[in-house]
Amino acid sequence: MPALITLTTDFGLRDPFVGIMKGVMLAINADVKLVDLTHEVESFGVLEGALTLAESYRYFPPGTIHLVVVDPGVGSERRPILVSTPDCVFIGPDNGIFTLVYEREPAFEVRHIIAEQYFRRPVSRTFQGRDIFAPVAAWLTRGRPPEHFGPVIGDYVRVEIPKPVPSGEGLTGSVLRVDKFGNVTTNFRPGDLPAPFRLLIHKRAITRLVSSYSEGNPGEIFAIVGSAGFVEMSARESSAAAILKAKKGDPVRLESVQRAAS
Amino acid sequence: MPALITLTTDFGLRDPFVGIMKGVMLAINADVKLVDLTHEVESFGVLEGALTLAESYRYFPPGTIHLVVVDPGVGSERRPILVSTPDCVFIGPDNGIFTLVYEREPAFEVRHIIAEQYFRRPVSRTFQGRDIFAPVAAWLTRGRPPEHFGPVIGDYVRVEIPKPVPSGEGLTGSVLRVDKFGNVTTNFRPGDLPAPFRLLIHKRAITRLVSSYSEGNPGEIFAIVGSAGFVEMSARESSAAAILKAKKGDPVRLESVQRAAS
Amino acid sequence: MPALITLTTDFGLRDPFVGIMKGVMLAINADVKLVDLTHEVESFGVLEGALTLAESYRYFPPGTIHLVVVDPGVGSERRPILVSTPDCVFIGPDNGIFTLVYEREPAFEVRHIIAEQYFRRPVSRTFQGRDIFAPVAAWLTRGRPPEHFGPVIGDYVRVEIPKPVPSGEGLTGSVLRVDKFGNVTTNFRPGDLPAPFRLLIHKRAITRLVSSYSEGNPGEIFAIVGSAGFVEMSARESSAAAILKAKKGDPVRLESVQRAAS
Repeated sequence: MPALITLTTDFGLRDPFVGIMKGVMLAINADVKLVDLTHEVESFGVLEGALTLAESYRYFPPGTIHLVVVDPGVGSERRPILVSTPDCVFIGPDNGIFTLVYEREPAFEVRHIIAEQYFRRPVSRTFQGRDIFAPVAAWLTRGRPPEHFGPVIGDYVRVEIPKPVPSGEGLTGSVLRVDKFGNVTTNFRPGDLPAPFRLLIHKRAITRLVSSYSEGNPGEIFAIVGSAGFVEMSARESSAAAILKAKKGDPVRLESVQRAAS
Repeated sequence: MPALITLTTDFGLRDPFVGIMKGVMLAINADVKLVDLTHEVESFGVLEGALTLAESYRYFPPGTIHLVVVDPGVGSERRPILVSTPDCVFIGPDNGIFTLVYEREPAFEVRHIIAEQYFRRPVSRTFQGRDIFAPVAAWLTRGRPPEHFGPVIGDYVRVEIPKPVPSGEGLTGSVLRVDKFGNVTTNFRPGDLPAPFRLLIHKRAITRLVSSYSEGNPGEIFAIVGSAGFVEMSARESSAAAILKAKKGDPVRLESVQRAAS
Repeated sequence: MPALITLTTDFGLRDPFVGIMKGVMLAINADVKLVDLTHEVESFGVLEGALTLAESYRYFPPGTIHLVVVDPGVGSERRPILVSTPDCVFIGPDNGIFTLVYEREPAFEVRHIIAEQYFRRPVSRTFQGRDIFAPVAAWLTRGRPPEHFGPVIGDYVRVEIPKPVPSGEGLTGSVLRVDKFGNVTTNFRPGDLPAPFRLLIHKRAITRLVSSYSEGNPGEIFAIVGSAGFVEMSARESSAAAILKAKKGDPVRLESVQRAAS
């Protein structure tokens, strides 16, 4: 099994920073396989980065290392951390980027990376991806175990995911993001949904939760639990976002529907 | 020979969809090599995707698998298909994306992919790249032969490539695309060209067909048959598109030139 | 040690040109590893490409081949060249793209690539990346030594890097580039700096040269020698470019500071 490292950053593709991190890793382990998740996380987008990662990491084979450098506070005193689960490892800054991993993984350990012998020296304050995260990821693929890199910590940071707020008889939530397929991710969790329910966005109501896309009817916009664990509004054959005119930040209302007496 | 899969999509690079497809493939075959052709095919661009693929696939080594997910009708009832030639395999939706392969390859078989045991379940209607195309491509690299995945079909779809239309004593065609080098691809085929001929675009005439770029003269705009099989207008040392002010969709006129009696 | 080739171009990611070059290389050596540095060098950006490369190449393992196709004069009579150092090889057009390599490497040889038996024939005048540079890079990874590809030359081209000019009691230089982290690269060299000095940009003065980012103080903008060998203006925890409102081409003034008698 060749070692596999994914990369997620907000570096963009114009500067050579992603390439430099790859060079650093290949100089440590020439056999490592490198896969880009995205380098277009929006600047200051810790929440967006967390969603991107949560949507993606479970599709990779066991043993994959996910390197995430999305760090609006680069250079400040954030701890570099390593999160290990029975299946995979995450490496990045302690700024909440792994919040959804903490929520979803039944077992994980978070370590503060302090093993400076693995860092490139001197460590740049602006480019810790090159000097800390990339070399640590590459050394992990050479068999150094996570406990080698630092002690377990319990006070790791979580990013605040805007929570739906009660208002009237329901909840008011919002659109967390819209993807290229037009899926509209809300900040509702499956447990928020009463039965029956009504999701309202821009005066349009969605009332059905399906468990797979194939259950959707042509023309219907339905609710589905997306791979990041949030309720999404989707259409089977078209862009729900385009039909709903939904964009990031738009309010979404969730109400319980009274069943008519029968 | 390591297994090689190319990827061509209209997913863009912001969302993690391309990375997710790579994860799915690497989970099936950790040794597969993955090469991006482009993920910037314009939305709804079946013809553009077909041209991109036609320009590119012959440069890859024998045995390469070309995975193409450009699917404006994603989620509708398009068949997933597999096209095999003696040299390589194409996998994608049956929407005409392989039209130029059908035109150019002397021998090929088209199969309807129905072997659901290779799909990720449940199959998403919006992301068949992840659930059907990527796993089928990866299983092919593990030695499953094409006939494993479904029956040969004859009613596969071709995309309509706008054809030049007769008008007056000549033909009126159009610009199919312009690339970064300024090459202007028309919808004329080599067989359309009378000898001698005159191609007219924005009142400028091109009258010479060369067989390689080095035959072009400095300053000259000449015609050449491009790697996708269409007549292109090119310049040796500069952008023909810039000089001609040519852009996609512009009309191009083709006329026969009367030889003066000699 | 698997063979490693980096790619730096101005091709962008929409057309399949980068993918085609990769196909050509993989057809010659199926085991080669390919890493993108950037394909977004601005058009006609020989200086920018030279800076990108100079910032990056030292992070790659020994034996890496750096393929650079940034060529505003594509199709004209530029020589294809190969630059070898004890550590790595550069392949690209003789247009000055390797100027900073010549400046910084204590030992190197430049060869005019003339071994046409390694080219794809016929050679396109517009796409030498595919027909000359990519195949030569791939054949190098199969053990052909540099001397196989052509004779050593001494009249290779250097790009002019705008030099600071004396004015009054100091020097007037300029901003060469600004990166995503907000580092501002000037055209001053470390040897230009008197002690003590004052760098002036948009009326703001920078007076301290540090040897690593960690020496910078919070809120301070300091000078540091960047990895391309030029003086940069940086901040420890924020974007120096944003604070200074600095952009490419802006003038930067360098003055000696009189020490007060003590």
